[in-house]
Amino acid sequence: MLEQRSFSVEPWAIREIGLDLDNLGHAESVFALANGHIGLRGNLDEGDPHRLPGTYLNSFFEHRPLPYAEGGFGYPESGQAVVNVTNGKLLRLMVDDEPLDVRYGQLRSHERVLDLRAGTLTRELEWVSPSGKAVRVRSERLVSISQRAVAAISYTVAPVDEPLLVVVQSELSANEDLPSGGHDPRVEAALVRPLEAEGHFVDDSGVTLLHHVRGSGLRMAATMDHEVDGPAGVNVHSTAAQDIGRTTVICRLAPGQRLRVVKYLAYGWSSRRSMPALTDQVRAALTVARYLGWDGLLAEQWRCLADFWASADVEIDGDPQLQQAVRFGLFHVLQAGARAERRAIAAKGLTGSGYDGHTFWDTETFVLPMLSHTMPDAAADALRWRQQSLPAARERAAQLGLAGAAFPWRTVRGVECSGYWPAGTAAFHINADIADAVIRHGDATADVDFEREVGLELLAETARLWSSLGQHGPGGGFRIDGVTGPDEYSAVADNNLYTNLMAQRNLRGAVEACDRHPEQALSLGVDQDELALWRDAAKAMVLPYDEKLGVHAQSEAFTDHAPWDFANTPADKYPLMLHFPYFDIYRKQVVKQADLVLAMQLCPEAFTAEQKARNFAYYERITVRDSSLSAATQAVLAAETGHLTLAYEYLCETALLDLGDLAGNTEHGLHIAALAGAWSGVVAGFGGLRHLGTGLAVAPRLPEQLSRIAFRLRWRGRRLLVEITDAQVEYRLLDGADLELRHHGTLITVPRAGSVIHPVPAFGAVEPVHQPPGREPLARRAAAGRA
Amino acid sequence: MLEQRSFSVEPWAIREIGLDLDNLGHAESVFALANGHIGLRGNLDEGDPHRLPGTYLNSFFEHRPLPYAEGGFGYPESGQAVVNVTNGKLLRLMVDDEPLDVRYGQLRSHERVLDLRAGTLTRELEWVSPSGKAVRVRSERLVSISQRAVAAISYTVAPVDEPLLVVVQSELSANEDLPSGGHDPRVEAALVRPLEAEGHFVDDSGVTLLHHVRGSGLRMAATMDHEVDGPAGVNVHSTAAQDIGRTTVICRLAPGQRLRVVKYLAYGWSSRRSMPALTDQVRAALTVARYLGWDGLLAEQWRCLADFWASADVEIDGDPQLQQAVRFGLFHVLQAGARAERRAIAAKGLTGSGYDGHTFWDTETFVLPMLSHTMPDAAADALRWRQQSLPAARERAAQLGLAGAAFPWRTVRGVECSGYWPAGTAAFHINADIADAVIRHGDATADVDFEREVGLELLAETARLWSSLGQHGPGGGFRIDGVTGPDEYSAVADNNLYTNLMAQRNLRGAVEACDRHPEQALSLGVDQDELALWRDAAKAMVLPYDEKLGVHAQSEAFTDHAPWDFANTPADKYPLMLHFPYFDIYRKQVVKQADLVLAMQLCPEAFTAEQKARNFAYYERITVRDSSLSAATQAVLAAETGHLTLAYEYLCETALLDLGDLAGNTEHGLHIAALAGAWSGVVAGFGGLRHLGTGLAVAPRLPEQLSRIAFRLRWRGRRLLVEITDAQVEYRLLDGADLELRHHGTLITVPRAGSVIHPVPAFGAVEPVHQPPGREPLARRAAAGRA
Repeated sequence: MLEQRSFSVEPWAIREIGLDLDNLGHAESVFALANGHIGLRGNLDEGDPHRLPGTYLNSFFEHRPLPYAEGGFGYPESGQAVVNVTNGKLLRLMVDDEPLDVRYGQLRSHERVLDLRAGTLTRELEWVSPSGKAVRVRSERLVSISQRAVAAISYTVAPVDEPLLVVVQSELSANEDLPSGGHDPRVEAALVRPLEAEGHFVDDSGVTLLHHVRGSGLRMAATMDHEVDGPAGVNVHSTAAQDIGRTTVICRLAPGQRLRVVKYLAYGWSSRRSMPALTDQVRAALTVARYLGWDGLLAEQWRCLADFWASADVEIDGDPQLQQAVRFGLFHVLQAGARAERRAIAAKGLTGSGYDGHTFWDTETFVLPMLSHTMPDAAADALRWRQQSLPAARERAAQLGLAGAAFPWRTVRGVECSGYWPAGTAAFHINADIADAVIRHGDATADVDFEREVGLELLAETARLWSSLGQHGPGGGFRIDGVTGPDEYSAVADNNLYTNLMAQRNLRGAVEACDRHPEQALSLGVDQDELALWRDAAKAMVLPYDEKLGVHAQSEAFTDHAPWDFANTPADKYPLMLHFPYFDIYRKQVVKQADLVLAMQLCPEAFTAEQKARNFAYYERITVRDSSLSAATQAVLAAETGHLTLAYEYLCETALLDLGDLAGNTEHGLHIAALAGAWSGVVAGFGGLRHLGTGLAVAPRLPEQLSRIAFRLRWRGRRLLVEITDAQVEYRLLDGADLELRHHGTLITVPRAGSVIHPVPAFGAVEPVHQPPGREPLARRAAAGRA
Repeated sequence: MLEQRSFSVEPWAIREIGLDLDNLGHAESVFALANGHIGLRGNLDEGDPHRLPGTYLNSFFEHRPLPYAEGGFGYPESGQAVVNVTNGKLLRLMVDDEPLDVRYGQLRSHERVLDLRAGTLTRELEWVSPSGKAVRVRSERLVSISQRAVAAISYTVAPVDEPLLVVVQSELSANEDLPSGGHDPRVEAALVRPLEAEGHFVDDSGVTLLHHVRGSGLRMAATMDHEVDGPAGVNVHSTAAQDIGRTTVICRLAPGQRLRVVKYLAYGWSSRRSMPALTDQVRAALTVARYLGWDGLLAEQWRCLADFWASADVEIDGDPQLQQAVRFGLFHVLQAGARAERRAIAAKGLTGSGYDGHTFWDTETFVLPMLSHTMPDAAADALRWRQQSLPAARERAAQLGLAGAAFPWRTVRGVECSGYWPAGTAAFHINADIADAVIRHGDATADVDFEREVGLELLAETARLWSSLGQHGPGGGFRIDGVTGPDEYSAVADNNLYTNLMAQRNLRGAVEACDRHPEQALSLGVDQDELALWRDAAKAMVLPYDEKLGVHAQSEAFTDHAPWDFANTPADKYPLMLHFPYFDIYRKQVVKQADLVLAMQLCPEAFTAEQKARNFAYYERITVRDSSLSAATQAVLAAETGHLTLAYEYLCETALLDLGDLAGNTEHGLHIAALAGAWSGVVAGFGGLRHLGTGLAVAPRLPEQLSRIAFRLRWRGRRLLVEITDAQVEYRLLDGADLELRHHGTLITVPRAGSVIHPVPAFGAVEPVHQPPGREPLARRAAAGRA
């Protein structure tokens, strides 16, 4: 048995050599393929063994009861959880009279490669059955980016040294057994057999299964067809029943012969379409897939990825492992968002059922910055999804006694699914995060139509929320009391600085957008009186600052609270939330994840450089990074405040989070926001990209560990290549008109189709900053994981 | 059918004339009989119809799962809920061939009387069966105060005008069907058939059923025996099965004849005793009951109550309804606490299963003040129960990372059963409330043994809790951050004034007790260093005060928060917690129940008279009294600040809460704390009783609505009678030595066996105070309820 495994370090691929049965779940997530609509976990072709079988359709969910020991008004009684849909990945193999199962017989070799340019997962293995029959299998899998409803698998079997009778069973399998959830509240509850069969069909063009979800009523269809290429005498036969469709291929193979089965899959779901309409929809997609053929699908996949990399690639010289990890991250963000098309981009993309498949603020704050600058259409679609869910958000706001829209803290399709309001409903900042993404997207794309049709409404409805949520207190300052900021180790506090600054940005952005689109604003009911309210609120926003310490307070009185006793908190007591009560965590100075530090990234004008340095040092000392949403932000601010080595270490941490399974929970799905954060770590961190509302502003700088960073950026119809070497930066326009930008604060011009070189200004020595004991950036050794 | 009902106004009885089937639950609670160990709801003898059948044994509970949509460390996974035990109240009657059921045939008359001096519930009815047979029934029921394990019922049947064949079925019935709980989270969850049969016996001395509770494993026994008195030919027969014991009495009755069945009941439960031991225990109690006989039990009951009233009676002239209500309240507090004996006194006593039968801070803060001054042994026992539960409280503190003891917010037997930590675990003030009860009890009784053996340990362990819970902040002040005070419409706030003041009192009380008992303190591990810490913390306690408004802040920044929009909160949106999210309620200036105002009652020295007046006016305007724990405190402070009419109105509200069903939920059980609060409203309100640590201090004053108040008070071995008329107060010692006390601040002496008269000083005119619109004290009309 081949139990070891390693990921080799390569620039454009993740290659797993060997197979580690104890950590199958990690690889299932790492090797997941998706296009934003369909997601296939990297389960083995033959299904067994597995940690978590996973096939997902974006936003296809079941209701999940939310119980409370003591209920309260406005608590959601039912949540939404993505379900594991009909599994079309299955290709089981019988070798003579024994099924291929890597746990039995002898696995001579096993290698999987996720090819970041091809967009495929290939697998090659040589296996000897318990009775001594040796076989080679090669499979290649893709989820098509160009054909949203299509996936395909090429599966090839060949004998090694003696003739074999082989049977390939290609399946559609509904209602697979799932492992039960663990005790960690973050782990999803298992949804047991959620699919009710509605129909199954077999004919010349394949096998189709139709189901609907018991509770939510959503309907789905999965269909498959095959091309079989093998020696004479191959026999193919298909059957279907309620929860199983099966195409069986049998043949004898002599050494030198091979059997190849290409499996085409198409998926669709709808909350409204009839059974026949949905059946036809997936069969049409299947027809397209067969028409293009395997090679056609592969070629289209290559083209899509080439386009992507041309706008999005980040080159890193001096650390091949980081290079690989950053590209791995970019690839998975692409997979999460490419074809989501007005559906959500979930925290785990479509790579696992962690967090019940919910979408949080991760999307707008961590994923969209990258998408707006690399795949702006995907970013726009994600925000259109928010706009589409405005009715639910307005209803929620009304239930909470507020005006405008209150977007859900966590959701599949738009309704609030948070069962713990202090860290859910109270985290109103998500509304400003959405507004921030709108403003940033407008800044990056100058897409006036988007702003008028989508952005304006989102800005206005969230501005209304803030206007009703806050109030001018006794001193006149605009206060937002009793809310929860990004740091989930504090909750329900007054004047969270991040929230207040972001609300200010939201209010101002709404005013400006309304000024630019006065007619559209009027049609949304925004009049001058309302604009005046928004302006006043933004202007009077309370921003807590501790004069004695000379630092901003994360929220009012935060710096008066007791420090966390880090010295007596051993390593095995992290993450704190699993070992200490919220009560204790909330009332002390301990920060789960960048909060005020994130405010310094997103609202840079609100702080002087000295304040940023002091704030960063103060909060660095109490931030434990029990959330994967932290390292990227810390990287960005570390870079800005001159801690370049620390920035590099945080960048490595966020980039390697899933490849190295640093949090130990990658098996539940990838941390898409952390992976997108690697892009931010490079582009906003070492690149210094900021959205100041005055055009493009960057401030590139290289850590000593790297010899060169090059990144691409879409900016208002242009593609800009920024190439940082030790002492200089070259700005090159790959396409588009002349560009003015701020380079370390100085306005410079990059000529059309040309480039300019500017020196990197020196940065004086900085006082080192410190993390809580044991909470330093995860060491490279750990980062390398099991490699 | 006789559907009307009224409670007549009488000084010593609650008389219900008629029967209102739509409000049976209200009467079941009002007519509940209990002795602190056994509780029988005022269900009809024949069981049907009922709202909630209820028979309870103090602290006899079943586990109840506490589910969470999103869990957290330290959340209790299982709670405790009292169960409805074997019902021994049942006496069904068959009249010829038809069962007595008031819903059928004709109920010619129906009257029930709760006699506050006899300690009995009597019922007289005349009923005509559907086939026209008329019968008179008289039952009389008692739960013995002198014989803790015993209850008894005398049941008499007589024909009205023609001969009848009557069958009386007297039962022990386990696992009765219960109505399911409503949507109000405060209503108990129904516990379905929790009792597992262990044995059933019938012999000459009665019928016995043994059960244990499925989950908690607690074992109980119920036994009954009967005396039957009737014409010749009476036949008596007993049977028993797992869940039913039945004694059947049959006879023919001619007009003028009657059948009388006296049913003796005994109950017992144990977590440790064997089945035979428990069986013998209840049979011994039954033997005592039969030995004393019905008349003997009645006589003992009279004596116990005469003793009680001699120490506890409150006389009110000028408002007969208030007089009745106050005595009703005193009687039910007696019933809740008289024989609890180191078990808890639950929020609803033993009158219903509301709040799952849990005990909260109600006991120490609202019930014990009365008991310490009227039945000091019962008060001491209640605190001994807390001491007994110290192991669980220490364990909870350790789990929360704290020193000392953290008593549960709600519990049956000592473990935390709160499923919502912001209004449970975070309400640490309960620990100071227990300490306050210890200090007050010591003050009232001067019981040195109690202090040494019980009080000291409770004081020291709670002082330890505060010492570890708070911290000296940057300015040196001792801060207690992130806790919840009494007002449940605020939560998890910094430096709740009530909590900080009570913690200060706790710390100081602990220091003083340790100084008085140095050896015992050392044996608890309290050394001089620890005492110094407690002294420092108490001295440096942060007490938030809003300089601009000139009022104390309920907690830090409270007065900066938005005011609640009372003008747009219609009457049907109260209680707010059922119509608005906690998120919204917590962040605004709206007070569910006296919090800072209670601090002014319990820590009077911390405020000047002017501060009290300003604070009272400020908080009165934002207090909605959505809790029954508020009116009594508001009465006390209204009286102190010169708002005597308002004090009178609040006193009426708390006194009439259950008789008038003012909150509409008396059917789930009586509000024992509110009823005890009526005593406080009189004695601390109009009597002005305060615990200043310098001897007895009173400041009597009469509202214009009343012409005389007289109350009795136990004080360090004496009984004092205080009689307030318009312009003067007479102090008379009923027994005990000369007494020095403060009368309106002036030290006076009351001579042994004599009395003194002092004038009531005048109080200047005061500015009226205002409540939120619609939240004025409940009008007398409403208070009169359905009468």
